[in-house]
Order: sequence, then C-alpha cells, then structure tokens
Amino acid sequence: MVFEFRLKRRVQFYETDAAGIVHFSNYFRYMEEAEHALWRSAGLSISVPGSEIGWPRVNVSFEYARPLRFQDEFEVHIRIAEIGEKKIRYKCSIVLDGISIATGMMTIVCVARRPNEPMKSVPIPPEIASHLRVAPEGGQAS
Amino acid sequence: MVFEFRLKRRVQFYETDAAGIVHFSNYFRYMEEAEHALWRSAGLSISVPGSEIGWPRVNVSFEYARPLRFQDEFEVHIRIAEIGEKKIRYKCSIVLDGISIATGMMTIVCVARRPNEPMKSVPIPPEIASHLRVAPEGGQAS
Amino acid sequence: MVFEFRLKRRVQFYETDAAGIVHFSNYFRYMEEAEHALWRSAGLSISVPGSEIGWPRVNVSFEYARPLRFQDEFEVHIRIAEIGEKKIRYKCSIVLDGISIATGMMTIVCVARRPNEPMKSVPIPPEIASHLRVAPEGGQAS
Amino acid sequence: MVFEFRLKRRVQFYETDAAGIVHFSNYFRYMEEAEHALWRSAGLSISVPGSEIGWPRVNVSFEYARPLRFQDEFEVHIRIAEIGEKKIRYKCSIVLDGISIATGMMTIVCVARRPNEPMKSVPIPPEIASHLRVAPEGGQAS
Repeated sequence: MVFEFRLKRRVQFYETDAAGIVHFSNYFRYMEEAEHALWRSAGLSISVPGSEIGWPRVNVSFEYARPLRFQDEFEVHIRIAEIGEKKIRYKCSIVLDGISIATGMMTIVCVARRPNEPMKSVPIPPEIASHLRVAPEGGQAS
Repeated sequence: MVFEFRLKRRVQFYETDAAGIVHFSNYFRYMEEAEHALWRSAGLSISVPGSEIGWPRVNVSFEYARPLRFQDEFEVHIRIAEIGEKKIRYKCSIVLDGISIATGMMTIVCVARRPNEPMKSVPIPPEIASHLRVAPEGGQAS
Repeated sequence: MVFEFRLKRRVQFYETDAAGIVHFSNYFRYMEEAEHALWRSAGLSISVPGSEIGWPRVNVSFEYARPLRFQDEFEVHIRIAEIGEKKIRYKCSIVLDGISIATGMMTIVCVARRPNEPMKSVPIPPEIASHLRVAPEGGQAS
Repeated sequence: MVFEFRLKRRVQFYETDAAGIVHFSNYFRYMEEAEHALWRSAGLSISVPGSEIGWPRVNVSFEYARPLRFQDEFEVHIRIAEIGEKKIRYKCSIVLDGISIATGMMTIVCVARRPNEPMKSVPIPPEIASHLRVAPEGGQAS
C-alpha cells in the first residue's frame, strides 16, 4: 500500500517564462507527474485506454514562496491526505535544496465515463483503493 | 478605473489531453490571459521589459464542475476581489453556454527585482493602483 | 472552397521563455491554430468525436528570422500548398508589423483509426476534399 | 568532447492531446531537453543568466512515423551533425522499443544579445566549441 512519492525533476527551458522563472501553471503539471508516478509505484495506472473509469480533478491549488529557475533540480513530494468513498485528496511540496518552496493540494474524483453522457461520480473500485492509503499524520508537508 | 474583464476564447487542440478534455493546468493560463487583458484595458502592462517591478503569483486555485472540449467557445470572467498595499486578489469564472463551469482565485504580489537578490514585496506604485479598483460586491461570481 | 486563413493572435505570457521571447515550439501551435480555423471557415472540423478518420502530422518545420515577444500582436497566415490523394501540405508565415518573421510547413495525412490497430493512411473523403483547394501559386508566402 | 546524448524520458499526461497521442509540438521540447542534457554532459550550459551570448533556434523540423502514448518510455537520441563558425546543427531520433519512430533536425545560432538591439550572429566562443564535436558519420540516425 502506497501513500507517497518523491519525484526528482529538473526544470526544462520551455517551462520558464519571460520573468526568468518557471511559469506558475507548470507546478500543477509537476504535481500530476508525481501523482502518476505514485500510482505506478502502487502497480496502478491513472488512465487505462478503454476504461470506463476516469479521474478528473475537481479542486487544485498552489502557494508559492520562492521561484524555480532553468536547470534547477528539485523534488516533488506528493502524499495522500484523504481517501473518501469517491475521491482522493493529495498534498504536495516542491522542495529545492532541502527547503519547501511551494505547496499544493489536489482533489480527484472517480467517475464513470459513458459516451455522450455527462461524467458521474462513482465509488472507487476496491482493486484500486486496496493499493493506496492515507499518509501518516494526514500527509503533513515534509 | 477597471475592475473586471470578460475574455472570449476558444479551446485549442494542444490544450486538450488524452481524456478528451482541456488539461486542468490550462485553466490557470486562461485566468492569466484574462488578467493581462484586464491590465491592458486599464492602460497597463503586467510585464514591462527592464522594469524593477514584477508580479509573481503567490496563491492560486481552481475548482472544476464540468469539462471544456476541443473548439468550445467560452468566456473567462475575471474580477478584482481585493487590493491590498502590496497585493491584488482576483476571482475568475470560466463560463460555457452561459453557465459557470469552473471558478478560480489568484493572488499576486508586487515585488522589486534586483539582479542576484531575492524578490522582495513592495507597495503597489500609485500609477498602477490608480487604474484598478475592487469589483462591486467583492468580485462575486457571475 | 477555402485555400487560406489569416489568424490574428497576441503572444501570451506562458508562451515566452527565460530568453524573453516566444519558445520556438509554440510556433507549431500557432500554425495548427490557424489550420483549424481554416477548416472551420470551410465548414469542417479536423477532429470529430467518434470519427474513424484522423489527421496526424507527418512532417513539420519552421524557419525563424526574428523573435516574438510578450503581448506582440501578429498574424498567422496559412495556405494549402498541395492536396494529394491522402495528404494535405500547408505553408505558413508568421507576420509581425507587416513583415514575415518565420515560415513553416506542415504535412498531414488522412488515416483510419481503429481500436488496437495501427493507424493506416486512407484517401481523403470527398466531403472534406470538396471544401478545400490549393492556394494560387502553390501557397507562396505573403 | 561530446557529440551525442541519449535521454530517457516518459510521456506525461499533459503532453497528450484529444487524439490520445503526444501532441506533435512536444517532440521539439523533447529534442531541446536532450540538447541541454548534451551541453550539461559537456560541462556547459546553453543559458547562463547575464550572459551576452544566446542560442536562438533558426531552423527546426520533425518527421513522424508512429505516435507516442501516455506513459510510454522512450529515448531521445541527439547528435551533433555539423559545427559551423556561428552555428550548430543537430540530428535527433525518438526511439520507442528500439525503433526510431520520429526524426528531427535543429540548427541553432550563436548571437550577441544587447539590450534594445536586434540579435546579431557571432562566432562560437572557443571555450564552448572546444567541448563539442561532430558525431562520426555526420550524426547518422541510430
């Protein structure tokens, strides 16, 4: 049972902007990269072609304390903060030189996807829930 | 004095993902596009080459109710919810077919940027503050 | 019958990089935006949900003479240079202040998409081909 | 003296599009990621803050034979095909399961960057040129 993942990453040039720092929208992509790595480390995939189950994001946020720059090596530390009947909530820290410089949150919902119908939330299948658990202390930031 | 902007936009193919919908990170880019259009409509620019003032984002969030798909025409409605001594807070709605399908929030801070020094928050210059004001009712969602 | 499209566009902040100019990869997104607008102006859509036909890109290029910067207003001028039995080739110019500052090329192929099978090129359906034609002089740059 | 680099990479979800495959524009980002890794492996950085030298791209292309999908692990193999007085040309292969599925090319030029002046090409400084060399056989695809 997996409850966290630490992803090593390096800032790429196309992720920077004219202010000379990583564009703030990319932190959400970093958080999602780490989430998918967490799922893989649990033997799962968040997106299975042809699956009737999907995982749209319903609530996401980031708070930024310091910037990232081109070629910085950093860590994305994601933890499961909560598992509900139909949803999962993560906490995430972006760590540079051992210091947390940004913290994020993301809630995803399990939905059934049928062609030409709106997405409808459904209980998380046990074969997925059984591989994930809440981090100790509710996913406190590292 | 400007307090809101309504940006018309169409979903581009490169903004979609393998789930067939707009990737959630792009909503932050939509919100920023509308913010910059709001500044232009006030006769301002958020990024002036060579300026010692910058506007990093310190806090952003989005809540998603329904997805956007390729070629959807939508509106990004951004309003100024708060103007502090050193920061500005926006509220934002993504509107499709007259219905708000996602709501966002973004706080930016005015900083002095000096080479080789960390960014430091400073009071918003009056020549900027004088062109902006808080939306009626604190920027309630449309 | 449509053979060209001129798209007005403004550089967004997230399209710039730490060199202070638009990241070169985004010109391909601009070219595709203009292509899809060309299709719409012909009453067509390049991506119809559930369709068995798709249009992967097989060959693309760009040559850059001068950069684009934040908030620049420019034009993407795309023309159809060639229509084959199974493919379409475009030429594209990025125009700033009346001057072409970059030129691109893109070839797309009509393919049949069947689940769990590799994509296979097929003749362009007549209901599509009948709405498009080659630009005069083979799509010479503006 | 370095003449090539092989970068291991995994497809991220935000790199896919509604056709279920990696958006074609991202291959240029992959090629650039590998280029920067090549420079780092030679003890160089393509973008040094405050430097008067820059490396804009002047000519890029990609040919695509087969798609990449979410979570695919692939290799970006970049080689130096040519070093001129003022420019460097690369060849690049995207390799999936041992097979080259796309090939790219990129030419970059060494320029002097002075504030408020257009970029001007200049000879490659010897302290950079001395760390790079042309790949055997002109950078033939792997």
